[in-house]
Amino acid sequence: MYLTNEKVAILGAAGAIGSNLVQSLLQTGTASRISMYDPLEGPLKGSAEEIYHCSFPGAQVTWTIDEAEALADAAYIITAGGAPRRAGMTREDLRKDNCKIARNLGQQIKRHCPACKLAVVIFNPADITGLTTLVHSGLPGSAVSTLAALDSTRLQSALAQHFSVAQDQVTGCATYGGHGEQMAVFKGSITVAGTPLGEILDGATVEGQGLTAGQWTDLQQQVRGGGAAIIKLRGRSSFQSPAHLSTSMLRGRLGADEFPWPCGTYVNRGEFRHIMMAMDTRFGPDGLEYSMPEGDADDMAALRNSYKHLTNLRDQTIADGLLPPLDEWKDVNPNLV
Amino acid sequence: MYLTNEKVAILGAAGAIGSNLVQSLLQTGTASRISMYDPLEGPLKGSAEEIYHCSFPGAQVTWTIDEAEALADAAYIITAGGAPRRAGMTREDLRKDNCKIARNLGQQIKRHCPACKLAVVIFNPADITGLTTLVHSGLPGSAVSTLAALDSTRLQSALAQHFSVAQDQVTGCATYGGHGEQMAVFKGSITVAGTPLGEILDGATVEGQGLTAGQWTDLQQQVRGGGAAIIKLRGRSSFQSPAHLSTSMLRGRLGADEFPWPCGTYVNRGEFRHIMMAMDTRFGPDGLEYSMPEGDADDMAALRNSYKHLTNLRDQTIADGLLPPLDEWKDVNPNLV
Repeated sequence: MYLTNEKVAILGAAGAIGSNLVQSLLQTGTASRISMYDPLEGPLKGSAEEIYHCSFPGAQVTWTIDEAEALADAAYIITAGGAPRRAGMTREDLRKDNCKIARNLGQQIKRHCPACKLAVVIFNPADITGLTTLVHSGLPGSAVSTLAALDSTRLQSALAQHFSVAQDQVTGCATYGGHGEQMAVFKGSITVAGTPLGEILDGATVEGQGLTAGQWTDLQQQVRGGGAAIIKLRGRSSFQSPAHLSTSMLRGRLGADEFPWPCGTYVNRGEFRHIMMAMDTRFGPDGLEYSMPEGDADDMAALRNSYKHLTNLRDQTIADGLLPPLDEWKDVNPNLV
Repeated sequence: MYLTNEKVAILGAAGAIGSNLVQSLLQTGTASRISMYDPLEGPLKGSAEEIYHCSFPGAQVTWTIDEAEALADAAYIITAGGAPRRAGMTREDLRKDNCKIARNLGQQIKRHCPACKLAVVIFNPADITGLTTLVHSGLPGSAVSTLAALDSTRLQSALAQHFSVAQDQVTGCATYGGHGEQMAVFKGSITVAGTPLGEILDGATVEGQGLTAGQWTDLQQQVRGGGAAIIKLRGRSSFQSPAHLSTSMLRGRLGADEFPWPCGTYVNRGEFRHIMMAMDTRFGPDGLEYSMPEGDADDMAALRNSYKHLTNLRDQTIADGLLPPLDEWKDVNPNLV
């Protein structure tokens, strides 16, 4: 009836993403045994009650304000349990605060669920919080991922709206590297109603509509600001799409559906080392696998830029003492040789 | 891939219930063609964008601030588009405001989608707003329903928590008549882990736990205040469970799953006349069918009380001019002979 009856821990379960996640996992028949954790007891209990009032058959949903209890022997973890960015706070402040949370999460995973098969980190800056979680967790790189797909689905949606075509007529959208502002938008594989984006940029039209180089730049900028646009329109940051896409990632890990978007993954081959970023990924029987995305010279230059930006964030996190120096990672996590 | 590709109109789609509904309909593979309506353009667009960013394959989701456009030829309608109760507002004020919205909705249905197969009214007081919608819509009684199931699922959940058993080990929970404070809790069919509630009230135990008459009264009171409890815990009224249960009602109407809870339905047989209330319902090929629930003398007395309360609300709504006098209903809606 559900794809898995193994324990799934949802962290930040009283929040908008976390509570939607629990509903999504049950509603899609993905997971039945869910432990909801949040430090805020009242809202957490209220969120759990809402789920109970749905009366999902066969569900075993519990809630706790004890993170260790939530994580104990969890097979899967999805965490939206970061601190939100508050007024007056810089991105830098947010990174430090959330990397502290990520370090603690990694240490708790090592202690309470060292056999965890997939941990998905949603809270921002996800590339760095995911990396920090991984290093401290002792898990293999294939078992920790970050939600990166939103940039790609936003690009798909923006192109569909520009050309007035159904969204699934836009294929091959993929952004790699860092999530958000530093993402590398790959144009190589994109087609709109069968026409390659390269041809469209060279003057081809779809439904009578073209795309100039300037419009394409604007559109990429729109995607980079996709999260901010939601906040402006709804008065709150996006929560439905992160919850839905994370549920789909778990379905991919469980082998039910192919997850068609790039995921954040630990990268330590070739020119990219000791980093977590979105690559060309797929879920295999042992977890997340990746290969280098294929793109033209511009695409690859954007990816290298994005990598460079992420290494700066990583090195600042090392300087803050929240990640060990690179040559000590293997001591903290023997899987990261 | 979806149970139906016919048009579903979601009213109040920028709100918490409405936006969750759209996600739920797509996520469960229930409906692909959804028109989102709300008068608040920014939040509506933001809610639609969130759905686009989920990238549901085959989805055709549009949004509009023109209610007529949303309703045009809709086969199904689910509406959470009532006004919320604001500070200083009485229940009476809420009834009047929302019955105006319901009357307008009924008139719009008559004009724009007279072949609508099911309209589910969620906004409170749902029994009266649903009835008002029905009378003005011209639809048959079998095509308009209200969300009543929450009282029953809350009762199931409360009993499961009291006895520390899995929720689906509590069966036969059903509340009839009005939704909320005036509901009639039927105890006749309830069993906990196989033991009838009547035997438990006579001293039997489940998992070492009994239930005194006083505890049973408290528990019913807790269910009556279930909505208020969520507001207190989460700081907002429940939205996930209404959205999920309404999605399940539509699945019932589409013949995919049996909807196992009572629905609000138009009742005009026997001792109950010209009213909408929760009865023993099932979805047949032509819409919602009902029969009189079976209960002991106490249960039936509670149902008659609930009916009496609803007739008062109905008669006040007639006095307000928002419903025609009873003998004119058939002129406004020839299906209500």
